[in-house]
Parts: sequence; C-alpha cells; structure tokens
Amino acid sequence: MNMILLKNVSYLNIEKEKIEDNYDILIENNKISKISSKIDIKADKIIDCSGKLAVPAYTNGHTHLGMTMMRNLADDLDLNTWLNEKIWPVEDKLTSEDIYWASMLSIVENIKSGVGTVYDMYYSMDRVSDGIIESGIRGVLTRGMMDISGGGDERIDELLELYKNYHNSGNGRVKIVPAPHSIYTCSKEYLIKLMDIAASFDGVINTHLSETKKEVEDCLKEHSTTPAKYLNDLGMFDLKVVAAHCVHLTDEEIDLISEKDVYPIYNPSSNLKLASGFAPIDEMLKKGIKLGIGTDGSSSNNNQDLIEEMHIGSIVNKAVTLDATSVPAIEILKMATLNGGKLTGFNNGIIVENALADIALYDLNALGFTPKNNMISALCYSTNSNYVTDLIVDGKVIMENREILTVDEEKIKYEVNRLTEKLLKR
Amino acid sequence: MNMILLKNVSYLNIEKEKIEDNYDILIENNKISKISSKIDIKADKIIDCSGKLAVPAYTNGHTHLGMTMMRNLADDLDLNTWLNEKIWPVEDKLTSEDIYWASMLSIVENIKSGVGTVYDMYYSMDRVSDGIIESGIRGVLTRGMMDISGGGDERIDELLELYKNYHNSGNGRVKIVPAPHSIYTCSKEYLIKLMDIAASFDGVINTHLSETKKEVEDCLKEHSTTPAKYLNDLGMFDLKVVAAHCVHLTDEEIDLISEKDVYPIYNPSSNLKLASGFAPIDEMLKKGIKLGIGTDGSSSNNNQDLIEEMHIGSIVNKAVTLDATSVPAIEILKMATLNGGKLTGFNNGIIVENALADIALYDLNALGFTPKNNMISALCYSTNSNYVTDLIVDGKVIMENREILTVDEEKIKYEVNRLTEKLLKR
Repeated sequence: MNMILLKNVSYLNIEKEKIEDNYDILIENNKISKISSKIDIKADKIIDCSGKLAVPAYTNGHTHLGMTMMRNLADDLDLNTWLNEKIWPVEDKLTSEDIYWASMLSIVENIKSGVGTVYDMYYSMDRVSDGIIESGIRGVLTRGMMDISGGGDERIDELLELYKNYHNSGNGRVKIVPAPHSIYTCSKEYLIKLMDIAASFDGVINTHLSETKKEVEDCLKEHSTTPAKYLNDLGMFDLKVVAAHCVHLTDEEIDLISEKDVYPIYNPSSNLKLASGFAPIDEMLKKGIKLGIGTDGSSSNNNQDLIEEMHIGSIVNKAVTLDATSVPAIEILKMATLNGGKLTGFNNGIIVENALADIALYDLNALGFTPKNNMISALCYSTNSNYVTDLIVDGKVIMENREILTVDEEKIKYEVNRLTEKLLKR
Repeated sequence: MNMILLKNVSYLNIEKEKIEDNYDILIENNKISKISSKIDIKADKIIDCSGKLAVPAYTNGHTHLGMTMMRNLADDLDLNTWLNEKIWPVEDKLTSEDIYWASMLSIVENIKSGVGTVYDMYYSMDRVSDGIIESGIRGVLTRGMMDISGGGDERIDELLELYKNYHNSGNGRVKIVPAPHSIYTCSKEYLIKLMDIAASFDGVINTHLSETKKEVEDCLKEHSTTPAKYLNDLGMFDLKVVAAHCVHLTDEEIDLISEKDVYPIYNPSSNLKLASGFAPIDEMLKKGIKLGIGTDGSSSNNNQDLIEEMHIGSIVNKAVTLDATSVPAIEILKMATLNGGKLTGFNNGIIVENALADIALYDLNALGFTPKNNMISALCYSTNSNYVTDLIVDGKVIMENREILTVDEEKIKYEVNRLTEKLLKR
C-alpha cells in the first residue's frame, strides 16, 4: 500500500469556506484516509507542509488540450476570420502525433496551475487518453462530433472504439463522454443519436452551448427557439449535461438549467478575447446553478492557467453587475473544486476523509500571500499559478517543487516547437 | 564607466511593432549606446541572451505602493463599505515605517513583473523615495493631497520639503509631482494652489479622475459639469496631466483629453474588482489618446502584476465593444512601454540607441512561449510575470535569474508580515 503523510498542513475546507490550520493528512493508495491534528505513522513519503497551503486539486472544466500549436497564431481578429482563415485551415492538417504533443504541453500547463482534472473536447482522443494516463492526472475526454460536413457515422464508430478501449482506464482516471460539438454543427438526428449513446455510456453528454449571439440568432431562425430550449426539447437535459460557455442565455433558459442536471462551464478569458460577451454568472449563481470554470483551448485563451481564469472570472462580473459583492472569491473557488468534482463525476475537489487524494500545494512564503490576511481572497486575487509547488493526483505526487515527475517537460516543449514548424509548412 | 553587453538578443522594437532577432546591445553607464548585429568589446558584464526576449522595462502608470498591508484584508465588498469600514480605519494607523516596508514589498512585486518605473501616489513619500532609490528602479512619486478634512497647508509644506530633498535624486531616478487626490477630496481653491505648485515644479500634475459613476453624478450636482471639464475649466489641462482611471468620461471629455497633454491611466483589475465599470479604452485609442496602464494599489487589485494587467486590459475591452479586433496586444504593450516613458517624462520604454538602459528579459523557453508563433501575442496573452528573469534599470542589473540583487526580498516579506500583525492589533 502506498502511503503519503502530509505534516503540518493548512488546507482549504471548501465546504466550510475556511482555512483549517495545523492538521496532518494521511493518504493511503489513492484516497485521503485520515485528517487529524496529529498522525504518527511510518509512511512511504512524508511531506512537511509547514509554509504550504493545501487546496483540492483544481478541475479545468472545459478545454481543447490539442489546440496549443495554434496558440498565438492569430489574435485580435473577429471570430469568423479567426476560425475560417486562421484556425481551421491549420487544424485540418494536424496529425494525431501533433495532437498528442500539443495535449502534453497543455497538460503540463494545467499541472503547473494546480489542475488535477481536465474536461477536454477534441479529436484523436485515443492519443490524448494515452497522454492523460502517462501524466498521472484525470481526464474526462470527450470526442467532439459533428455531421454537417459528413462523416458523422465514422465519428460514432471512433467514439464507440474509444469508449471500449479507454473508458475507466488508468486506474479509473479516464472517462469517455460523447460530445456533439454544438447545435450549429450537428443535425437534430445526429444530436438524438449521440444522446442515445450517452445514455448507454454513463448518462453524461458534453457540448458547446450559446457561446455567441450569432448562435442564438441562427437558432431562432432555424428552430424558432433558443439553443438551451432547443436541446431541452430534444430531451438532452434528461441527461447530465456539461455545457461550455452559456454566454447568451435567456432568463427562461437560466430557470430551465437550474431545474436540470446541467453544469454550465464559465470560460471568461475565451469569451472576452473572442468578444463573445459576458456570461450571466451572477444570475446563474443566484439561481443555485452549479457552475464549473475552464480555460478553453490555448488558441483562444491563449494559455491553460486556471488560476488566472479564476481571478479574471471573479472580477469581470463585478463590473458587469456594477456590484463588487457579486461572484466573490469563494464562489469561483467552488467552481474550480467542489463543482468540478461533481461535473466530472470524479467527486474529487474536496479535502475530506475518504475523498480521492487530489491535492495541490501552494508556497505560503510567496509574495501574493504577503501579508497573511484573508487566504481565500489571496487564492483568487493576489496569487498566481507559479505559487503552486506540488500536485498530488490519485495519491501520487505528479509535481514536486514545480518539477513534473511523470513526463518530460523539456522534451514536450522541444517536440511542440519542432512539430509546429513542420505543421505550418505543410 | 560601467559597460554591460547583451549578446544574441531578440528584442521588442515597440515603434516598429515587431521582434528584432540576432542583435547585440551595448549598455554604457545608464544608456543603450549601441545596437548592432555584432559587438565585440570587453564589457564589465556580458549576458548571453540566447533563449531570452528583451523588452523595454515596463512602466506601472498608477499605483499606491504603500497599501500592501491592506491586501486581501477586505474583498467582495461595495466601494463605500470597503473604504469607510475596512480600508480607511486601518490606513489611519499606518506609520511611515509600515509604508516603507509595504512599498518595498510592492516594489519587489513590480520588479518581478518586469516593471522598471512606477508612478506612485501615497503619503510618507520621503520613505517611499528612499525605497525607490535603494531598489534601483525609477519612480514618479506623487504626494496624494486633500483638504476636505483640513490639513491642506501642512500637506503643501510636506510636498515642498519632499521636492527639495528628493526631486531628481537617485541619479535622476526619482521625480516628485503634486497630486491632488481627486475633485471630491480637494476644494477648488486647493486644486488651483496645487496647479500653481505643479507649474513651478516640472509642469506635471497627477490625480484620480472619473473613477466612479458617483464621482460624476456628484460633480454634476455640485459644479454643474463633468469632472474632466471641471478640471479643464480650472486650467489644469494646461499642465501635463496624468489622470488615473478615467472610467466614466463623456464623448465630449474624450475629445477634450485628445486635444490636451493628458495621459489617462487604465487600471483594469481595480476598475473591475471595485465595480467601477469599464473604461472607454477603445474610444480613447481611436481618438489617438496616449494611454498608460497601471495596477493600482494592492488593496484594490490585489497584486502588482503589470503583465496580468496587460492581459486583462486587452481582453476585457473586446467583450465590451463586442469586437475582437479592439485593443490589440500591441496597443497594450505600448501603454506599458512607449507611453509609459512619455507620461513619466523619463522617456524610457523603448530599446533604441541613446535611450535609457531599462530592459527586462523573458525566458523564451517558458511554456507560454511554446510554440513560437506571434511573440507580441505571447507577451500579452500567454505569458506571465514569472517568465521575466532579469531586469536592468538605469544600466544596472536589478534582478538576475529572478533574484533581486538590490534589496532583501525575504527580509521585506518578514517585515511586512510582522508589521501587518502589529498594525491590525493597534
């Protein structure tokens, strides 16, 4: 049995919304087995956590790990020019090896901002699954599917194969979920087919929803209703739904979502940078909706820094609502922890006995924690991803003193640089 | 003569809006004396800049260095509760030693995000000047002045003393500028008095302007005009004005500012977090207004990370205007460099021959620069303050491989923690 003992820990008790001081935390295999003021036991590894702050490892609720080669390739452009002229022509030429190495780079960035679980939608997901397994983190891996340009059935064959080969692999760290890309890239029939498949898997489905005004306007024209209502009418909301973006929801749709098992994922940087708009986060919180938070892909964000995402995600809403009390630090932290655990189904994102041992450690001696006033504020407003020193996922140390132990960061950077050069010449 | 030779440099040519590759840069005393494809000379120090990117050291256009002890002390509160119940009662108890150490901490944070010049408004500015001189960076230090609660004349005496003792001190790295705090804390007579003093100094004045809707409404009630017009009517805009915030300007005021020597300073994080609103950055840029960018104090931001500020400052505007092409990366970089040099009067913020030798180096091997697509995008969107490895100011190396050479970071953190504990018990 693998045992890790964290000594002298201060940790974020996310349910009680406070920092607990002076505890020892025992990890046995992949679980937190005991939290007590003093544990003396001969563990395989003892980590002295004096001067550290432990938080539940974060969940990046929506990303496209494989898009990193298009990072900084085209910015400050409107969405259509960006997608049609810049991103899609390059994306078309990506090989599965490109996607593997790009995903590895994104995984490294996620680990370095304390992320233990990613919710990733892309293709070549067999290779992405390999990368997740090697890296030691968790992934809900969703195959982005569309049929408007044909190939819908082949995608389904791939999905079924992927599910067979990878679902619950890596000691249960990988889950496969179907992901109709969006209402504008999937026919009604295809959406229904994928819902049926989702029901035959774990009853979970992932999609982009109401990202832009145009999507809503087109939906109104074509289906005489708004996107969330359209999906609900098709029966999708009888499943557990993880819906990225949700920027342009009507009040009626917010009510609808609050009654269903739907997790909107907030992607503030991407929504701002692509000029999609401001998601109604304050309204959704007030309706008790469980929100996740994500970085989106590095071609739109352009990074995988969930800690910066939390910061931006909180403060931008205050200006939207003209209310400085809206979307406080603790709510943003819940999106990245507790809610993250629920929306992925891993039920991690919390430091309690019997929870999965997914923990990130921060260096409390860092500038942003000085002086030591409210630590919950510090986590959201004054610290950054470089203050995360260690990451434990599934009871294993993945990063120690900012060195990633599972994969070779330098090799990954080298390969991404090399392959991007080749890609852009193709 | 002190000579530093930077070999094999890639650097940001901010005027040409591009990265120049394969240059050597020679620094003699405090100036860049030569930029050429190959310089062979026996310098006191040779820095191999292969794998580095040089940018002009940034200018933090508006901050309150001395407010760091109130960082994370009170957040997610409306402006009035925050100021009246939380910040001011503590601020009242600050000693000049508190302000010195708090400022030193802020200076360290600024250095670590590549900032070589700060534009700082606060009090106990003699001690802040000492700190600036010790740290090796530049500071325009402005004594925040108000007379609504009395004491206006004593403040003036202090200002004159400060000017006499510190203006152009530290090899010219310190400038003293008068700063009426705002139109709502200064009487008309006091504003005019300070304008006269400013004219007798370097002809520069610093103030907060149109930060909140309330300020505008109150101004309309009391003076039957809007804040910028009110100040212009008093003659302030015949001086060079550095005006923090400028969130709530009318179109007429934007036109007015575009015709005058007024530099609005954009403080995105603070304006968002305090729910002040969205400054009309896109409109101001379109009118050719020279903008600076700043972090504001750590009690409202809550950090001193100008690189994050650039990121947030760019993307938030795109959602405000619903135009992804607005406020592009290069414009934000100009605010922090070229414009910074102009608004401070140091005329740094540019890497050309004969400019002041104020240069920050980034590690190009860092994650956010991988892959190597558009480096200007990378500087704004995908990198962070921890990628800055070295900082040269006034021809001296202030930070080397993230270690600050001029002041003792650990001692500063220790003192800030110790003094904050004492402060909160007083």
